[in-house]
Amino acid sequence: MQNTTIREAKKEDCPRILELIQELALYEKAPEQVTITLTEMEECGFGEKPVWGALVAELNDVIVGIALYYDRYSTWKGRRLYLEDLIVTEAMRGRGIGKMLLNDLIAFGKTKKYNGVVWQVLDWNEPAIEFYKKYNADFDAGWINVSIDF
Amino acid sequence: MQNTTIREAKKEDCPRILELIQELALYEKAPEQVTITLTEMEECGFGEKPVWGALVAELNDVIVGIALYYDRYSTWKGRRLYLEDLIVTEAMRGRGIGKMLLNDLIAFGKTKKYNGVVWQVLDWNEPAIEFYKKYNADFDAGWINVSIDF
Repeated sequence: MQNTTIREAKKEDCPRILELIQELALYEKAPEQVTITLTEMEECGFGEKPVWGALVAELNDVIVGIALYYDRYSTWKGRRLYLEDLIVTEAMRGRGIGKMLLNDLIAFGKTKKYNGVVWQVLDWNEPAIEFYKKYNADFDAGWINVSIDF
Repeated sequence: MQNTTIREAKKEDCPRILELIQELALYEKAPEQVTITLTEMEECGFGEKPVWGALVAELNDVIVGIALYYDRYSTWKGRRLYLEDLIVTEAMRGRGIGKMLLNDLIAFGKTKKYNGVVWQVLDWNEPAIEFYKKYNADFDAGWINVSIDF
């Protein structure tokens, strides 16, 4: 989309990134599940040992989308990029911004010698599934996410 | 189980760990999906920048099970342990070895200040699901794993 630029996230972007994460949680019908604080997010992304990174899409100096990733290690496939969240704020959807973000993330992953990118989608999220199909992505259904909180 | 000990994996364990991974892939009906080499596995686990670690269960000096993990970053929950594979070789199942591995992994995660452990299970894998229920784990169904290979 015109005037949209993609760049790597900086620490100062964290408040806006957290807003977009909360917006996504609402869409996924689980807003109460977001328990992370801004401080934790900043520490994990820009502290001594960063565990996540992100690309942000900016339109007229406002962040309207993010692709947040971290390293993943697959015992079947090796070192891969894990796309934790691909979010475009609701008012800005349908303008190709998600595509710009995913394209740039794939280019970034290739440059950094990852051997692929993986992520998850909810089986009822048809617009997202249709979008990913355009990438000839591989789909593997039937998974349950299991967790234990300490 | 008597005579079973749990310890952290060493580089020399990698050939046996890879065998167990291949055994699991066969059980999950996807043996051709394991394309990782022993060298890559050693490099990613014990090279300059390790991305995975594992606990191994040993019975009379033979590794009969593994819990292989890496760091995960959840934008909802923060820093978590990701259990990539929990494997007990078929002949040794039903003897509590998986439980020893998972218990020790949880203890390890608490010591290292992770705020939880997460993993995935296939929705048809009832013995595994029954086992995880004993931990009061949280189950979130309906996910599709998506991937693009570079």
